[in-house]
Amino acid sequence: MESLFRIFTVPEAPDSTLGKIERHLSENLEDFLSSHIVAQERPLHEIEQDFAASGIPEQPEFVSTHTEKLLHTLVAQSVHTASPRFIGHMTSALPYFLLPLAKLMVGLNQNLVKIETSKAFTPLERQVLGMMHHLVYGESEAFYTRWMHNADHSLGAFCSGGTIANITALWVARNNLLAPSDQFAGVSAEGLPAGLQYYGYNRLVILVSERGHYSLSKAADVLGIGRKNIIAVPTDAENRIQIDALRRIADEVEQGGGRVMAIVGIAGTTETGHVDPLNEMADIAQSLEAHFHVDAAWGGATLMSEKHRPLLHGIERADSVTIDAHKQMYVPMGAGMVLFKDPALVNAIEHHAEYVIRRGSKDLGSHTIEGSRPGMAMLVYSALHVMGRRGYELLINTSIDKAHFFAGFIERQPDFEVVTHPELCLLTYRYIPRSLKKRLQAATPEQIAQVTPSLNVLTKYIQKTQRENGRSFVSRTKLTPAQYHREPTLVFRTVLANPLTSEKMLAEIIEEQRTIAESAPSLLQRVMDAATEAGL
Amino acid sequence: MESLFRIFTVPEAPDSTLGKIERHLSENLEDFLSSHIVAQERPLHEIEQDFAASGIPEQPEFVSTHTEKLLHTLVAQSVHTASPRFIGHMTSALPYFLLPLAKLMVGLNQNLVKIETSKAFTPLERQVLGMMHHLVYGESEAFYTRWMHNADHSLGAFCSGGTIANITALWVARNNLLAPSDQFAGVSAEGLPAGLQYYGYNRLVILVSERGHYSLSKAADVLGIGRKNIIAVPTDAENRIQIDALRRIADEVEQGGGRVMAIVGIAGTTETGHVDPLNEMADIAQSLEAHFHVDAAWGGATLMSEKHRPLLHGIERADSVTIDAHKQMYVPMGAGMVLFKDPALVNAIEHHAEYVIRRGSKDLGSHTIEGSRPGMAMLVYSALHVMGRRGYELLINTSIDKAHFFAGFIERQPDFEVVTHPELCLLTYRYIPRSLKKRLQAATPEQIAQVTPSLNVLTKYIQKTQRENGRSFVSRTKLTPAQYHREPTLVFRTVLANPLTSEKMLAEIIEEQRTIAESAPSLLQRVMDAATEAGL
Repeated sequence: MESLFRIFTVPEAPDSTLGKIERHLSENLEDFLSSHIVAQERPLHEIEQDFAASGIPEQPEFVSTHTEKLLHTLVAQSVHTASPRFIGHMTSALPYFLLPLAKLMVGLNQNLVKIETSKAFTPLERQVLGMMHHLVYGESEAFYTRWMHNADHSLGAFCSGGTIANITALWVARNNLLAPSDQFAGVSAEGLPAGLQYYGYNRLVILVSERGHYSLSKAADVLGIGRKNIIAVPTDAENRIQIDALRRIADEVEQGGGRVMAIVGIAGTTETGHVDPLNEMADIAQSLEAHFHVDAAWGGATLMSEKHRPLLHGIERADSVTIDAHKQMYVPMGAGMVLFKDPALVNAIEHHAEYVIRRGSKDLGSHTIEGSRPGMAMLVYSALHVMGRRGYELLINTSIDKAHFFAGFIERQPDFEVVTHPELCLLTYRYIPRSLKKRLQAATPEQIAQVTPSLNVLTKYIQKTQRENGRSFVSRTKLTPAQYHREPTLVFRTVLANPLTSEKMLAEIIEEQRTIAESAPSLLQRVMDAATEAGL
Repeated sequence: MESLFRIFTVPEAPDSTLGKIERHLSENLEDFLSSHIVAQERPLHEIEQDFAASGIPEQPEFVSTHTEKLLHTLVAQSVHTASPRFIGHMTSALPYFLLPLAKLMVGLNQNLVKIETSKAFTPLERQVLGMMHHLVYGESEAFYTRWMHNADHSLGAFCSGGTIANITALWVARNNLLAPSDQFAGVSAEGLPAGLQYYGYNRLVILVSERGHYSLSKAADVLGIGRKNIIAVPTDAENRIQIDALRRIADEVEQGGGRVMAIVGIAGTTETGHVDPLNEMADIAQSLEAHFHVDAAWGGATLMSEKHRPLLHGIERADSVTIDAHKQMYVPMGAGMVLFKDPALVNAIEHHAEYVIRRGSKDLGSHTIEGSRPGMAMLVYSALHVMGRRGYELLINTSIDKAHFFAGFIERQPDFEVVTHPELCLLTYRYIPRSLKKRLQAATPEQIAQVTPSLNVLTKYIQKTQRENGRSFVSRTKLTPAQYHREPTLVFRTVLANPLTSEKMLAEIIEEQRTIAESAPSLLQRVMDAATEAGL
């Protein structure tokens, strides 16, 4: 018991293993990560051997022993997400000051579900939501004075991430559409089958482009709407929703007795980074009286750049908007937000209990899908203050410039081609043998269909080998590019949000990919054989 | 740009404001919290003034300036959840070693949605789920060797908290009940209205005791089932579900054309800490072929105590179990888990995408409601190793002993009474003027109904005043105690999980409450007047 007490009362000594780690983290995070995360990838089944025991250990373990073990089995085999050469994820480097602040947040261990366990954290989170609301909607000062700290309303909901944010938005949309009336207690109380019956719809439908994030299908499943009822609308050559197709599908749904519950625009698709024509989508949503949600989980931070903000024109007409601070806002994992244009919208999901989130309280938990939640909003608050809008603008502009540089650089290579050009800081490309590059651009649909599978094998091989080499990382995805007649095409995907990524590093990443390709003659031969067979 | 770069590359100096905070946190957390969190509560509307601006600041701010401001506006006005005198919450003190480890976790900034952004964190999280599964279900070693790291199965889902865990469990239950068949693609694809129609039920119903957590109603809302279809079953004098009533209501539902989708047992109710008769509930669920879920968000950790584990007898028959590590497992906020007896159960909510959680991958994101998630499982892993099962057993046994001590102590006071006795380490009680205590215990239902409202006013006053005084904190809730003929009764609620709470502190908390009561003669008079009027 004595030693158990000690872990609650006596800190780690500065010269203990954990004390040293702490200092190393504080003094030079990049050096800590670079020297502790091994470059060479171990096969997963080997790593799993280290995490195979199913019993909770009976006996306590010394903190130092445990920490040593963690360094070797876990930290060494984690992913260096902060590395400027790891440009395949939306997770980027973190500003230094957020680390000690994160520790402070964990030490305070507030629970944001209610005032009683979070006190000042509650108005702070409301302010963060207010600031982000202002960024999107730019309402008047009077508006925020009235609503920001209002007990019965909310400008948004803070949550663990974009998926929960999207689910919350569509939950609100569903409950507002099938709202209580004189003879009906509302879908919240009565359930979805009763709601459809009362309102006389045979189904609810959500419309989103085929580039929509998979979390939207998950939301349709969770909310009882059904994955079949989220309809993927075709996109144009720039991966943006086709407005004509959207209108046509919406008409078909309503003529068939369905009801378009929500239209979802994407501000920065996960796979290509493109932004839907939000303003035209808002028109359609308005004419259908459908909820207009914008998934700006990744691209929303662009609103802080005066230069690039126009790319998101129309977002201010959205009924709800998702933004993840742990993506382009450089905050650690776990900081999602959904914002609501109308502060009364969230009343559709309001709930109370006797011992918590009582009626009339300002407890944040009355309007969130999650219950107990940590004080992550503090890190967003600090990031917004320390970097300021201008700081963010600089970061965002630099990222987009870098993406344009990289696209140009790739285009100039004889053996690489850009597949989707950057609108924000995301682009996709692939390797292609130099003798084939020009010819493929003039190929017939049949010829492309014949060659693409072998190119896909090559792309996958390059991406996996590069990841396993451990020096750099780009991700991969499958697109159906218009220039390739919608043939399913594997591509490298890069996100250039890390401010430490240099042009030189990008050139080295291309060079490494070229070397990997050229060291796989059999795969190259398969491509050339397929080309010959296709008459290219 | 230069200075923006610096925040990503140059750490805070050790003698900077933030550097000093870090050191203070590391050297003496309790002292840091005690000296920075002010005792006296400021009114909320005053605190809100500090968080009133709606615009994102244009200009960057120095980290030191910002940190100073945070200390005064936020930290000073946060809640001292780790204080041994704050016994009103389920949030307790944290072991020291978790703070530097939390910072390490944040610095690594892994994203657990997929292997590519989490590598060794993925097998680690699977092991944590395996260990907790073993704690609940105790399957064979062969079972865990087979399933723990299996790509297409999962022993559970890690999530931000108990609410998401409960929603996940009921989502799985719903999708398994209305599963795909030859002529039906399943509720996941077709939606709930189509699912009910296909299977010929007029509604789905969830049965839980009236002490069930509000997150279950929220789940019924989110999942499209409807809050009306979660039926609150009456409890006995010990706040446990009445088995007869459960059986009767289940029969009524099914006779009326409804289908009992799930029965939810509670292992440690939020308000009174009692455990439902899980084994008998499992029998009923089995006979109805309903999913049996146990909400052990708070009480689940009790399974680590050999002495008290029998209290949860029957939990091993549950199809799913919710446990929060941030409650009685002493891990920071944000560590919820749901465990599934059958590793194939989660297939009902499986989902994939092209660029992430591809089919056959071991990406955890294919079986979670959340998408991107932090590596919180690491803190659970470390806590389990450093404290060990025996360490936890000691902590849990001590907490329950302390609750029994406190109940006895309260009973011996002439002017306090226990309202619900502790089964785990939670109890409720109230102040009652000494001249009334005995008389009320023999009062008629009418007399109790007359006196209770004024006693409730007094209880609320004492609780609020004590909180505002800032030295200690108990929470309050409203119960309908059998001994008071179900009259709605406000009570003090205490959770005695903080290992640093001493018997002396508990005595002081009672003394402070007595002093507060005695300094409110008008409220006391109202109670006595009501008693006189009731002929007591």
